[in-house]
Amino acid sequence: MSNLNPKIKLNKKRLPQIEELYKQILEGDRFALGKAITLIESNNPQHRKESKELISMCLKNKRNTLRIGITGSPGVGKSTLLENLGLYIIEKGYKPAILAIDPSSKISGGSILGDKTRMNKLSKSENAFIRPSPAGKSLGGVANKTKESVILVETAGYNPVFIETVGVGQSETAVHSMTDLFILLLQPGAGDEIQGIKRGIMEMADIIVVNKADGENIHNAEKTFAQYSNALGLLAKKESGWSTKIMMISAMENKGIDKLWDLILEFEKTVRSSGYFDTNRKKQNQEWFHDYLFNNLLEIFTNNPELKKIYKEVLEKVENGNMSLYEAGDYLIDILVK
Amino acid sequence: MSNLNPKIKLNKKRLPQIEELYKQILEGDRFALGKAITLIESNNPQHRKESKELISMCLKNKRNTLRIGITGSPGVGKSTLLENLGLYIIEKGYKPAILAIDPSSKISGGSILGDKTRMNKLSKSENAFIRPSPAGKSLGGVANKTKESVILVETAGYNPVFIETVGVGQSETAVHSMTDLFILLLQPGAGDEIQGIKRGIMEMADIIVVNKADGENIHNAEKTFAQYSNALGLLAKKESGWSTKIMMISAMENKGIDKLWDLILEFEKTVRSSGYFDTNRKKQNQEWFHDYLFNNLLEIFTNNPELKKIYKEVLEKVENGNMSLYEAGDYLIDILVK
Repeated sequence: MSNLNPKIKLNKKRLPQIEELYKQILEGDRFALGKAITLIESNNPQHRKESKELISMCLKNKRNTLRIGITGSPGVGKSTLLENLGLYIIEKGYKPAILAIDPSSKISGGSILGDKTRMNKLSKSENAFIRPSPAGKSLGGVANKTKESVILVETAGYNPVFIETVGVGQSETAVHSMTDLFILLLQPGAGDEIQGIKRGIMEMADIIVVNKADGENIHNAEKTFAQYSNALGLLAKKESGWSTKIMMISAMENKGIDKLWDLILEFEKTVRSSGYFDTNRKKQNQEWFHDYLFNNLLEIFTNNPELKKIYKEVLEKVENGNMSLYEAGDYLIDILVK
Repeated sequence: MSNLNPKIKLNKKRLPQIEELYKQILEGDRFALGKAITLIESNNPQHRKESKELISMCLKNKRNTLRIGITGSPGVGKSTLLENLGLYIIEKGYKPAILAIDPSSKISGGSILGDKTRMNKLSKSENAFIRPSPAGKSLGGVANKTKESVILVETAGYNPVFIETVGVGQSETAVHSMTDLFILLLQPGAGDEIQGIKRGIMEMADIIVVNKADGENIHNAEKTFAQYSNALGLLAKKESGWSTKIMMISAMENKGIDKLWDLILEFEKTVRSSGYFDTNRKKQNQEWFHDYLFNNLLEIFTNNPELKKIYKEVLEKVENGNMSLYEAGDYLIDILVK
């Protein structure tokens, strides 16, 4: 804080139990880490206060990490891939963490990672940390808690962090907005419509992986590979300077996992040296901050009973077209500032 | 304002020249309408103040209008369709307005509607109003100005309002968020990738129109029709209760335009009677209001030199990970409220 404007003074009083929890996480204590994630998943106001305190401490600890988003339809083999890729990089000295966002789990009744047995070997490793999707009413809420989980697992020394999501709804956009690298996993053979993969997702992908290039599927995998290779040629170059790569693997037969990891490292090297890595992280930090700031500015209205009443009335009038959004906005801001 | 909380008092002092402009628009004066759109397109602070005043007046005037978004790749025939559909409904007593969002025009060098001659007959009609995309640095800015343009043309008595966009980038989402009905126009024959249509766009569409079902293209149009009919079956039912319809037309040969209009009216009837029409408009009004509110709350920081300095320092620290977003957010809100 030394080079901050002298007027900027933060309340330095820490909660001792949170300081203790933080130290345990920093030492890589898995039990403390699990406890911390449970804490941030809670919406209880006191827990939120403690969570913010904890995350603030963790953010001071800069870790040189890589955050990898991975999406694909159900059944495409995400868990098998993550299991084998995770085990492969543990051999190389990494400590991967796997988090999941699955806002659809409430509807479908099953979470992607609800069953840890799908990553049987990896979940038993001391060097991996696997955590299913936090429950949440809204994608925004789930996404925020996942961002906090990323900070926590990184503080505990895990790297890279994989964030897995089923390619439905808007969750891929959320995952894309919190990762450095985005991988799209495809089934062989099936056409674009049949896979339910939105083309917008393809455009977010840095690496496209055609899985199940094994047995009878090889021919179909090659067709899909060719089809997507063609389609990739039509896409504009990415802001990062990286042009999307496509490859075939067999997660089940553990084929191509090493090449995928090489490609991930090549991506990391490219975007770190171009400066995009830092620019992108900055942008993500800014977005997270703006979201927080906006929601808390709104809370000024909703937490004060009198202001809440005014806000509700004004909002209703705006929704029904009885008051101009400009008059309403200026009016509320006037109340706030004066 | 009668049933507002007595404490809610708005500054009723109006700018006389804006009041005058408003009256002229209300009378359907095309020259005044053009002038007003030029005013809202300006970013000059005084012009912005006047624009907000004008839009606030217009919003008080409730019009029973239909806002129709239309998207499709360049060359798919949007202008030809709009020309013929526009002329068709003018015969029925409507006064259509056509606005365009084309954030790509700066790059491609040409605006969708830059050339009014593409809607030669329609642009000469006294009962139609055509306006190309406002220039703007960001899609957000362009989208806001388009929303204001919609309010202006509706106040001048135009209905329905068509908002046209090229199916690239994020502009379709913006158009979708300001319309009641969304039409996707497709080329015959070409596959999903080749058309550059994102599947996300298909999911937004209420009506999918395969154009150019004429001459040698008929067979291809039928293929595309069948292909998309199949794909539609895989989509989840829309929130509106309307299931997406698909049809073939030939805009050039003026075939199917009447059936398309019937379908548009059927959609309108369905969503109005289900209540979705109103719910959706309310939601859109709320979003617009929240955007405005947030941007103006941020402006409190950027307009005051001292606060701006603090905000910039804090933001930089957050971006670089030197300060927690929570500490930063709480700190800024404390300054604001205290």
